[in-house]
Amino acid sequence: RSFSSEEGFLKDCSVPNPSWNKDLRLLFDQFTKKCENGSWKHLSSYKRGPATRIKDFKNFLDPEHMKEEQMSQTQLFTRSFDEGLGFEYVMFYNEVEKRVVCLFQGGPYLEGAPGFLHGGALATMVDATLATCVMIFGGVAMTANLNINYKRPVPLCSVVVINSQLDKVEGRKCFVSCNVQSVDEKTLYSEATSLFIKLKPSLT
Amino acid sequence: RSFSSEEGFLKDCSVPNPSWNKDLRLLFDQFTKKCENGSWKHLSSYKRGPATRIKDFKNFLDPEHMKEEQMSQTQLFTRSFDEGLGFEYVMFYNEVEKRVVCLFQGGPYLEGAPGFLHGGALATMVDATLATCVMIFGGVAMTANLNINYKRPVPLCSVVVINSQLDKVEGRKCFVSCNVQSVDEKTLYSEATSLFIKLKPSLT
Repeated sequence: RSFSSEEGFLKDCSVPNPSWNKDLRLLFDQFTKKCENGSWKHLSSYKRGPATRIKDFKNFLDPEHMKEEQMSQTQLFTRSFDEGLGFEYVMFYNEVEKRVVCLFQGGPYLEGAPGFLHGGALATMVDATLATCVMIFGGVAMTANLNINYKRPVPLCSVVVINSQLDKVEGRKCFVSCNVQSVDEKTLYSEATSLFIKLKPSLT
Repeated sequence: RSFSSEEGFLKDCSVPNPSWNKDLRLLFDQFTKKCENGSWKHLSSYKRGPATRIKDFKNFLDPEHMKEEQMSQTQLFTRSFDEGLGFEYVMFYNEVEKRVVCLFQGGPYLEGAPGFLHGGALATMVDATLATCVMIFGGVAMTANLNINYKRPVPLCSVVVINSQLDKVEGRKCFVSCNVQSVDEKTLYSEATSLFIKLKPSLT
């Protein structure tokens, strides 16, 4: 693996790049401003480096399914596309309100019906946002249920805002929910609820 | 656009390639055999060509969000990865039983928790399989609700079988469901139910 490839894995993917449209830049600037007084915080995001992965998870992976070559190729699904083609997003969180907001621009490789975002691509960003919400406010957990209502299709290459919150914690169960809106908040694209189960302490 | 790129879009992605592991090949052969007497049928699958797309959908897309350059880049989400890195899958359907089976191998770019398939990647293939089931047996429709129970995480690079069926049609509502199992059927990874709404005849 070349140094440049390693460098690619160390790059924070949650900051503006040339593929971000004006809506995404504007919202990013607005939330960055909200971070100044500490009420909101920005979340960095990486592809996850294969070198780290092999070292840390070699004994954890199932060699029956994965060869060492495949292990070295693994990338976080939501960061596995080249710039601008897939998932472009950034998350911010508010500790007092137990909320995570994701600003998401879905690129041309995420198409479902012609001209629209694939329902699975939206489910992926919804799951990623809800998982982040649970991780920050609840702890290490796995998705147990994901229930999404699709109200309107999202135009491809447009920006949506995913507003999530931690609703309730009951023992190891974390209940979270979110909605997906247009930038002007006039269009409600989706609503989702989800249940995550915290891993037993021995596994974390 | 070069001829070779056009050719890439005409290639059937649902037939074996060097990235398919032995489980996926074996299952493909078994279902291909079931196709001989006509009880099961194989479904071809393409990336969708940009040339066709621009011609057919130019007036349909929102120019505010998509530039012509982006339109020419669109690819079906589930076929947008290079061979072996993302979604490798093939579907077969049984007309009498109103069932669609999807054989799915999730590559190293679909990682969620280290060593496991991202929940959103599984949701994507579940949605794609259920949508196909509705399209074949019900008609053109959009996902209105998707409800997934995740029971066990799927090891990355392993093969799973998604068994879907059309449960009920009520006017424009199509109810479908599926389960996701290991190749030996000993592990139940997920179960899902979904509601699709058929488009009004004027839109199809």
